Amino acid sequence: MENKNLTSNLNVDALFLGPKSENRVFFQEMMDYALREHMHWRADFHPEDAPLVTPVDQHMPDFRNTLYRTEGILRQLSSKLKTTSVPWFSPRYLGHMNADTLMVSNIAYVMTMLYNPNNCAHEASPTTTELEVEVGRDLCTMFGYHPNKSWGHITSGGTVANYEGVWVARNLKTVPLAMAQHPKARDLVAGFSERELLNMSPAAILDLTDELKKRGIFEEVRSLTARGVGVKKGQLGKFLVPMSKHYSWMKAMDVLGIGQENIVPLPVDEHYRTDVAKMREITFRLIEEGTPILGMVSVVGSTEEGSIDHVDEVIRLREECEERYGASFYIHVDAAYGGYVRAMFLDEENRFMEYDELVKRYRAEDIIPAGVAWPKREVYEGFKAMAEVDSITVDPHKVGYVQYAAGAVCMKDKRIVDLISYHAAYVFEECGDDAAEDKKVVLGASIMEGSKAGATAAAVWAAHRLVPLNIAGYGMVIARGIVTADWFHAKLASAEPFVVGHRKFDVRPVMHPDFHMVDFTFKEIGNDCLEDHNRLNKRMYEICSYASGRTYTNDFLTSSTSLASHEYGDTPAIFVRERGFAASEWERVQSVYILRSAVMTHFLRDAQRFEEYWSELRDIFTAKLAQIVEMEEKENEQLAAA
Amino acid sequence: MENKNLTSNLNVDALFLGPKSENRVFFQEMMDYALREHMHWRADFHPEDAPLVTPVDQHMPDFRNTLYRTEGILRQLSSKLKTTSVPWFSPRYLGHMNADTLMVSNIAYVMTMLYNPNNCAHEASPTTTELEVEVGRDLCTMFGYHPNKSWGHITSGGTVANYEGVWVARNLKTVPLAMAQHPKARDLVAGFSERELLNMSPAAILDLTDELKKRGIFEEVRSLTARGVGVKKGQLGKFLVPMSKHYSWMKAMDVLGIGQENIVPLPVDEHYRTDVAKMREITFRLIEEGTPILGMVSVVGSTEEGSIDHVDEVIRLREECEERYGASFYIHVDAAYGGYVRAMFLDEENRFMEYDELVKRYRAEDIIPAGVAWPKREVYEGFKAMAEVDSITVDPHKVGYVQYAAGAVCMKDKRIVDLISYHAAYVFEECGDDAAEDKKVVLGASIMEGSKAGATAAAVWAAHRLVPLNIAGYGMVIARGIVTADWFHAKLASAEPFVVGHRKFDVRPVMHPDFHMVDFTFKEIGNDCLEDHNRLNKRMYEICSYASGRTYTNDFLTSSTSLASHEYGDTPAIFVRERGFAASEWERVQSVYILRSAVMTHFLRDAQRFEEYWSELRDIFTAKLAQIVEMEEKENEQLAAA
Repeated sequence: MENKNLTSNLNVDALFLGPKSENRVFFQEMMDYALREHMHWRADFHPEDAPLVTPVDQHMPDFRNTLYRTEGILRQLSSKLKTTSVPWFSPRYLGHMNADTLMVSNIAYVMTMLYNPNNCAHEASPTTTELEVEVGRDLCTMFGYHPNKSWGHITSGGTVANYEGVWVARNLKTVPLAMAQHPKARDLVAGFSERELLNMSPAAILDLTDELKKRGIFEEVRSLTARGVGVKKGQLGKFLVPMSKHYSWMKAMDVLGIGQENIVPLPVDEHYRTDVAKMREITFRLIEEGTPILGMVSVVGSTEEGSIDHVDEVIRLREECEERYGASFYIHVDAAYGGYVRAMFLDEENRFMEYDELVKRYRAEDIIPAGVAWPKREVYEGFKAMAEVDSITVDPHKVGYVQYAAGAVCMKDKRIVDLISYHAAYVFEECGDDAAEDKKVVLGASIMEGSKAGATAAAVWAAHRLVPLNIAGYGMVIARGIVTADWFHAKLASAEPFVVGHRKFDVRPVMHPDFHMVDFTFKEIGNDCLEDHNRLNKRMYEICSYASGRTYTNDFLTSSTSLASHEYGDTPAIFVRERGFAASEWERVQSVYILRSAVMTHFLRDAQRFEEYWSELRDIFTAKLAQIVEMEEKENEQLAAA
Repeated sequence: MENKNLTSNLNVDALFLGPKSENRVFFQEMMDYALREHMHWRADFHPEDAPLVTPVDQHMPDFRNTLYRTEGILRQLSSKLKTTSVPWFSPRYLGHMNADTLMVSNIAYVMTMLYNPNNCAHEASPTTTELEVEVGRDLCTMFGYHPNKSWGHITSGGTVANYEGVWVARNLKTVPLAMAQHPKARDLVAGFSERELLNMSPAAILDLTDELKKRGIFEEVRSLTARGVGVKKGQLGKFLVPMSKHYSWMKAMDVLGIGQENIVPLPVDEHYRTDVAKMREITFRLIEEGTPILGMVSVVGSTEEGSIDHVDEVIRLREECEERYGASFYIHVDAAYGGYVRAMFLDEENRFMEYDELVKRYRAEDIIPAGVAWPKREVYEGFKAMAEVDSITVDPHKVGYVQYAAGAVCMKDKRIVDLISYHAAYVFEECGDDAAEDKKVVLGASIMEGSKAGATAAAVWAAHRLVPLNIAGYGMVIARGIVTADWFHAKLASAEPFVVGHRKFDVRPVMHPDFHMVDFTFKEIGNDCLEDHNRLNKRMYEICSYASGRTYTNDFLTSSTSLASHEYGDTPAIFVRERGFAASEWERVQSVYILRSAVMTHFLRDAQRFEEYWSELRDIFTAKLAQIVEMEEKENEQLAAA
């Protein structure tokens, strides 16, 4: 497919190996290059050193035998992988946020892995530590943070990034309390009540830490924060997280010693975004009753729906709380899934474009074609406001199209790192040069994790160099999935029934997506039992996933989830009603089983190709429904016989 | 070098690419195999699907241009890597616990990465989740745990593994308190004081959880533990960690909300092992004064010295505390570095061999030659007792010879996982088959991290299949470094002075190693100033490390550390005295700078080759000392001129 973007020479099809390994010649050539460069590097290290393994050694029976065993194990592994792996690379896979990954990242990983750097310490990774700093800066810039004042780094994934957000929020929150206990810091918070100390804004606290550093008592005060003395049960108040949250937030409350009971779930609206009115109500109520708010989480790309929270409303709410009550709180955005989408709003100078300018450009360059209304205004505002939050989780291994495992966390104000950083004898280094600060800050002493593969940093770095984090790079790649998701939604919304014998089934989307995830369900026409509906969709999932055995021979693969009242309140009742069930069905069952497709493939962006795809998919769906009907009939026969 | 082991056909030289890429033909062939297998797999997926990228597309200017840009970025990366990477693979590198990594692990990683499985959920990694379960079982078996009753999994590294140890210990500790608060559980702990509840043994608490499960109130009680309600400042008591600890333990106390002030550092003895007498004294004192002990850490392979703690004495101490005071505590072993050494004690049936039998076999098979006294009896007992501790951290990316990042944690009793596990709608799966339990337990819901590369699991799995975790596998590989370290120590202990002009320097080891790490220092003969000694060794490190610029042209590379009183008390004073300094020097300086060599290379195990190596190394040391002398003289001239 020819690239229609006038301002960029990036061809999206040339970024990936392709569903038929179409770019195999290039891929193999570059892998070979990576390998050979490293092998020569080894051989050229001290040419005067004799080889330590000779051809005579290499032809000894036990030597050959060891190589044969190695080969045998690798063949066994290959066979295992081929049998059960999931073909993410194919447009036939529309499930989790998985797709083909960037060739450049795969090759960069392999190239770097051979040198085996460890980004825990600069000493063990002189190259890749610096690449990680660069990656952090790329991401901070994408989010609108000031590149010199902010700080970002790679984590093993969004879960650890979320932990790190809670970690800094928690330690920061206890700084004013610690100051009140230190004789040389007390004057800075004189006259404040405990409640006022617990309600200070993150920015104000960070400014106070500057003063502590000037007075030479920063470390002493720091040792009086939660870091030093532990968490005081209940003191830190509540942590507000949307119901659409990833379960890692529950783990975070446990791990960080805060306790899960201190999460206050925020209800979601009909778009599965945090309900702004209810969020405001809950926040005001907590403040009025004297409960501190440790932090608030906004989700940019909910795991199950891809919904984009109103981040701008959260920022506005905090300002309002500061003005009305003098009460502030920490704000973290969980954009593990949706973070890279912010590239779609940035021009080549990384400037966040005005809405009208953006839409005009989308149309002019056919990034978003006519008929596809993206972005919704509120989604646009949500992304724009990310620049103002305290920290952000983002996963390069999701919409960054990098292979696992590569998460990241970005902090708006890098001074916050001092509240969690550590130093150890063998990791600490003194640096005299200009890059000293960068080198120090990346050490395992400044982040939650310790050892980590420098190869991951290289993989993300290479991706960012090839695919800029703006409209001319990731914007173009991600737009393809967004457009396809919109088309997919439209087809599902208007699809004619599927006929299997005398039975008819229809398919409908749960809602119009904010992004590229389409949730949908099948329903037998005439069925008024929600449990039957759920069973049908669960069966559909089972025969369209790894659960049915080999995924390799499957025609279509997807994922699924349950939208249940204990996580979503009564929001799913809206869809259940639209789907034609009586209100009493939702009351009774309290859960709706849905199919879930993240449309990350860039291959269906061509209108004609998509039509063909949909037509095939209709046939596949019909065949799958027929398979389910047959299964049911068999089961009924067996039941009757028994 | 021919393999002299009579019972195994493993050739150690055939496991690695080699310092001159001696095994390049095989390595390249297998990498090529990995790549081609995957590319064919893609192409063969639904042969009826047409390729989505055609040769015409591929010859478009923007397509070619994108490939050229990709190549340019990869060349740039290669150049960066070659300029500053550290040649771990060479015997010229004796520093951190780094060496060449197993070919089979590197190739397995690449092979698997192309399929991009995510071990967070079985659904996203049907193959590699099972490989991770197998790896966990391998490690548990190596540690002497019951393979069906224990549980192990991969982490990003030792830091996260240590966190997980504290996490389970913390939540477990609060179970009895939670039971006392639950109306339907209260009877099980009737009559216990808070102090008694906080002193229950891990095994007794886990047995109680069985009863809670039977009563159907396990989840309710669990929500009353620290997991649900948070940490209550100070309540959990003290966490005892040797002074030789890795700094991740300080991070752990912070992250888990317990507070760093609740670490009680245990002094080390002259071998840099936890001082048993002082450990006992501190423990008894705490119990007698009514302070609960949350847990105790033993270090198997200290980061700076490779010392092996008396784990057996810790087990004995716990038994004694239970008998004398009815007070118990959790025991975690941090064997991030030394864990794999336990393979040296296991026969081919994974039986921990008797001491005499072991030594006999070492001699008979020339695993440990005459003249090398390994293992010391106390080291042997330390390893043996690991089977009795509650959990263990071990890093495949250290002495498992696997590339970064691969850590692991093992739990003796898998019931403990229920105290930290979670489930989320889109990750939870129902399994009906026999392997159901394994499948469920591996999900991101049962561990601290979330997403993680299935490729890591494959890399460790492949290593374990090729190199068994016993005397015939890892034992053989690791023994080579241990023997070489012993020889290296002997050379350092008896080395004649190095002469540079009219100045003379000697070199001496800090102590005889428990394992394969040799610490040593240079000293100018006649110098009686400890600061000068430290400056000399710091300079030596600087010109023998990445700090001097390109490591590639360096003749010898090592690492370094400071043994300072704030971390080690007065233990380093022993060496300082032996080194000929007055006691007042240690009093004044409080720190000794040392060079630090983990001898992981297997290439110097041949006595003749080692003699040649040492002779070259003497010349290198002399030249390095001359370089330092010259630097000093220049500095003195400049000072005089100024």
